[in-house]
Amino acid sequence: MLTIYGVYRSRAARNYWMAAELGLDVKSVPVIQARRLADPLDPGAPLNTRSPSFLAVNPLGFIPAIDDNGLVLTESLAINLYLARKYGGPLAPQSVQEEGQATMWTLWAATEVEPHAVKVVLAYDNGIEQSEEGQLTLRLARRALKPAFALLEAHFQRHAWLVGDRFTVADLNVAEVFRYAMTEKELFDAAPKMAAWLDRCQSRPAFKAVMAIRAAEAS
Amino acid sequence: MLTIYGVYRSRAARNYWMAAELGLDVKSVPVIQARRLADPLDPGAPLNTRSPSFLAVNPLGFIPAIDDNGLVLTESLAINLYLARKYGGPLAPQSVQEEGQATMWTLWAATEVEPHAVKVVLAYDNGIEQSEEGQLTLRLARRALKPAFALLEAHFQRHAWLVGDRFTVADLNVAEVFRYAMTEKELFDAAPKMAAWLDRCQSRPAFKAVMAIRAAEAS
Repeated sequence: MLTIYGVYRSRAARNYWMAAELGLDVKSVPVIQARRLADPLDPGAPLNTRSPSFLAVNPLGFIPAIDDNGLVLTESLAINLYLARKYGGPLAPQSVQEEGQATMWTLWAATEVEPHAVKVVLAYDNGIEQSEEGQLTLRLARRALKPAFALLEAHFQRHAWLVGDRFTVADLNVAEVFRYAMTEKELFDAAPKMAAWLDRCQSRPAFKAVMAIRAAEAS
Repeated sequence: MLTIYGVYRSRAARNYWMAAELGLDVKSVPVIQARRLADPLDPGAPLNTRSPSFLAVNPLGFIPAIDDNGLVLTESLAINLYLARKYGGPLAPQSVQEEGQATMWTLWAATEVEPHAVKVVLAYDNGIEQSEEGQLTLRLARRALKPAFALLEAHFQRHAWLVGDRFTVADLNVAEVFRYAMTEKELFDAAPKMAAWLDRCQSRPAFKAVMAIRAAEAS
């Protein structure tokens, strides 16, 4: 049995998407971020990243985490690479070369893109996007993200997908990182092939199903 | 033939270390960071990350990059996971579970540790470690790194290595990220098991051989 710890409104969404692509039976444990609560250790507080019962699973106190028949893993993007490998099918790399490319794209997204994309999403989450501070944050994030958009645009002028000629775990991982920057339309307007690729990823039934659950989740 | 692009005084060091562990024949192309040069596009400038001949290999302009019989990869930590898988032996994960753990530790080091560890190494590289700005940078970096040291200390109180019971690509990748913080002795003093693990990693003949070449390289 695969258990995913984390609410859908967190990086766990990417793991729920992967599980849905693979058709896996999932037990969802809706752990939320402790920073969203005034008193995360209050006995009446919802299950969160500082709850003792969650720390017993993941002493790091990070969501998402998974427990797959006793194997506990963290790091959402690593979890997806693991699930793709373990449960196979067309989303998994088919050779050591494809493995290398999928891992490369994932590490690139995690280190070169996500730190900036997260600033975008947090500016909106924190409701500061119209303030002077928020506008400056967004402008700096857009500037930092430009080379990444340009790189993908160049790639998608020659290819339909990141690895091989099909949707793989690499597309899913990278698409989930760029989702955090979707409010910044000027970046996508300047990269139409990249925007079309993201749309292809997000048109998949598994993505839509996960986003429907996410939308219904109490915020 | 495996070609590694990048000087030893860069993140390429971790790929040279991996290649040495695996006993691979390597062609080294000493590309340097363009930011270290006043005029990287001057015809007399040494090969650097903005040189057209390097951009033909890696349009990203990042070092390290490798070319392994025509497969070009970037992202130093992903390259090591690829080399371990391709060339096998005890450094490679031996099961899908070990693959998951090695990828998890690598992504954790890349996202939770390296951004702070790089600030430490740059403070010294830029010669500002004694200035007010440098001291503040180092203090903030140490604070940010403390949870990572505590996590590894807890791990190494129960285990000798990160994955399985032997030195693997996970140890190599994570050790190389923590190497950037080695000036901050108080972090290591507070984590003796972790410090002993790093020392075990760095006592390996392959690491020593690479560091000897690095020390001889023009800075």
